Amino acid sequence: MDSQELIKPLLIENETKLILLVMDGLGGIPDPVLRKTELETAATPNLDGITSRGICGLADIVAPGITPGSGPGHLALFGYDPLKYEIGRGVLEALGMDLELTPDDVAVRGNYATMDARGIITDRRAGRIATERNVELCKLLQSAIQEISGVRVLITPGKEHRFVILFRGKGLSGDLNDTDPQKEGLPLKPPQGTTPEAKRTAEVVSEFIRQANEVLKSQHPANSVLLRGFAKHPDIPSMKEAYGLKSCAIATYPMYRGLAQLVGMEVLRTGETVEDEFKTLVENYKKYDFFFLHVKKTDSYGEDGNFRKKVEVILEVDAQLPKLIALDPDVLVVTGDHSTPAVLKSHSWHPVPYLLWAKTCIPDEVSEFSERSCAKGMLGRFPAVEGMRLMLAHAQRLAKFGA
Amino acid sequence: MDSQELIKPLLIENETKLILLVMDGLGGIPDPVLRKTELETAATPNLDGITSRGICGLADIVAPGITPGSGPGHLALFGYDPLKYEIGRGVLEALGMDLELTPDDVAVRGNYATMDARGIITDRRAGRIATERNVELCKLLQSAIQEISGVRVLITPGKEHRFVILFRGKGLSGDLNDTDPQKEGLPLKPPQGTTPEAKRTAEVVSEFIRQANEVLKSQHPANSVLLRGFAKHPDIPSMKEAYGLKSCAIATYPMYRGLAQLVGMEVLRTGETVEDEFKTLVENYKKYDFFFLHVKKTDSYGEDGNFRKKVEVILEVDAQLPKLIALDPDVLVVTGDHSTPAVLKSHSWHPVPYLLWAKTCIPDEVSEFSERSCAKGMLGRFPAVEGMRLMLAHAQRLAKFGA
Repeated sequence: MDSQELIKPLLIENETKLILLVMDGLGGIPDPVLRKTELETAATPNLDGITSRGICGLADIVAPGITPGSGPGHLALFGYDPLKYEIGRGVLEALGMDLELTPDDVAVRGNYATMDARGIITDRRAGRIATERNVELCKLLQSAIQEISGVRVLITPGKEHRFVILFRGKGLSGDLNDTDPQKEGLPLKPPQGTTPEAKRTAEVVSEFIRQANEVLKSQHPANSVLLRGFAKHPDIPSMKEAYGLKSCAIATYPMYRGLAQLVGMEVLRTGETVEDEFKTLVENYKKYDFFFLHVKKTDSYGEDGNFRKKVEVILEVDAQLPKLIALDPDVLVVTGDHSTPAVLKSHSWHPVPYLLWAKTCIPDEVSEFSERSCAKGMLGRFPAVEGMRLMLAHAQRLAKFGA
Repeated sequence: MDSQELIKPLLIENETKLILLVMDGLGGIPDPVLRKTELETAATPNLDGITSRGICGLADIVAPGITPGSGPGHLALFGYDPLKYEIGRGVLEALGMDLELTPDDVAVRGNYATMDARGIITDRRAGRIATERNVELCKLLQSAIQEISGVRVLITPGKEHRFVILFRGKGLSGDLNDTDPQKEGLPLKPPQGTTPEAKRTAEVVSEFIRQANEVLKSQHPANSVLLRGFAKHPDIPSMKEAYGLKSCAIATYPMYRGLAQLVGMEVLRTGETVEDEFKTLVENYKKYDFFFLHVKKTDSYGEDGNFRKKVEVILEVDAQLPKLIALDPDVLVVTGDHSTPAVLKSHSWHPVPYLLWAKTCIPDEVSEFSERSCAKGMLGRFPAVEGMRLMLAHAQRLAKFGA
């Protein structure tokens, strides 16, 4: 039984407020010279203060040894089993472009490509055309193709040769192969589906490709399209359905707003800085039960290998933290969706430090928020997907199991 | 989803080197006088040195409270779920006799036995005949019986009254009952099978027993045979298939070489001592990705109840360890396949100390390699089957899960 099935019959209403503060890619490994991680290096009096009053642990986001992508990382923190709910490439790309997805959508990534007279792909990226040209071509395509057999076709340009298409219609499926042959010198692969839904979707996509090739035939080098990563909106319960929580998201990057939207959170307008994000939370505090506050740059600087800048973002968050503490929420969790050690310049499999502060917790002896100190906390080492259950418990939103 | 299914799509190639050093039956419990375990008693500066730079934990080999045999113990360390892959008694016995098994083999343990004129077993061990007599009888049987209905019959003598038979042929099954009635005064039980493969195998085995009784009829007291523990070669992926690792095994005892062979490791020739084994690893370091180095005597002395000698073997391994450290492997794990406390003179269920050293780990505060100190390590308490996933992660051989 997954965690959501376990808690569903136990949910009770309450007025309590829950805040989930996610510093993206928070966890690190020691810098070889400093012998400290980013969190160990940052002086964080406010985080340490709530650490002293809270409980800590190390959370495995997907499973020990598995490096999570951003999709599974956030699903786990929201209490959705990341092995059960997979978010396909096309959907993630669409979310990253701030597109609103509906449960009827199949999303796919597209490339403009060059095709010769015999139908052979000679350049999979159409010479990496300029973004402005891409925008023109997408307008051209969109004005020519708006619907195919009752399925709406929504085309959005990305950068260079990339775009995203949403096929919107009842009963579609994302179980289609990529049409991209992966190598030049080959024809594109016709889309095929095995289930009845996928067969119908494949017919719609085939017709789209036929029409697109027609529209683009005089637009050499961008005279064809390749499609990759077909994915349907995942059939996923909302935070309201799963937990009875009226939830909102505060995030500066489209992908995280999109992930929040997938689970039915309301996305709040906010500014560009960490300070803006905290301000937005405070201003909307009365309106919601659950607040997802996402800080991106810990991850960005981790990916860049910029240890010092990652430390600075942590300091910036620490400086803002009193604003949340002043709200006196019932439950405050501070954690990451995965580790992004600056030393590795990439996401990693290391478990993430997890801090839970609530009036109902038994404060453990940990008084500093870091990877190594959290390892000594009373939460121990645990699967991140259980975190949401703990938040609900501490928010006194779960009834007794059994009599 | 089991661990191997989870990681299979994530595997990436790399040049990294992984060493798994298994001290058989490593874990102990405190000696009642010394109040220390074998590991706590042994002064191990080299092990402690890498412990300081690595991460530690306690690994449950099968599950807490379950005492593992050598088969499940090693499968778990190799990352194969020991509850999913069972190695039958006959197969384990054959491996312990250094027999090479093929996927077409059904292996079974045999006893010479005494049968009276009415077909009643009067001595299940034929008076524990001498091993030399056993060798003669096996030759006699083997020269008379080489094949039955297209199935090859391979007979190998063991000690005293014991032998092993391999039935080698396509489509056989190990799902047969023992023919041993377990008590004297009863006739042997005819082998029976429920599936079509097992029925055919039962016919072959019945015919073997008929012929064997005929061949042995003048060899009283060894005038019949009892068969126990029919088992087919387990259908198990190789280390290459499961992890993309070119693997080798260095072990002085046949059973461990056999277990390694089952998962497709190449077995290297080595000498009799711990020093020989370490030397073999160093000499072959360039040729493989993964090295399984097995030290047997920690277990043997544990089984003997010889606390002091078990400590000495640990000291011997510690003295050799600098040879591995000098190789600067990407991942080095030191652990046991189960505990064998000298106090108990047997395998036990206690979790085993587990040490992982890699450049990518966050060294924890544990600086001594023992049961009680490992309990404080950042790996926490974890299922041993996850260890292989951690090794692959630290060897940077696993891609991100999801986007």
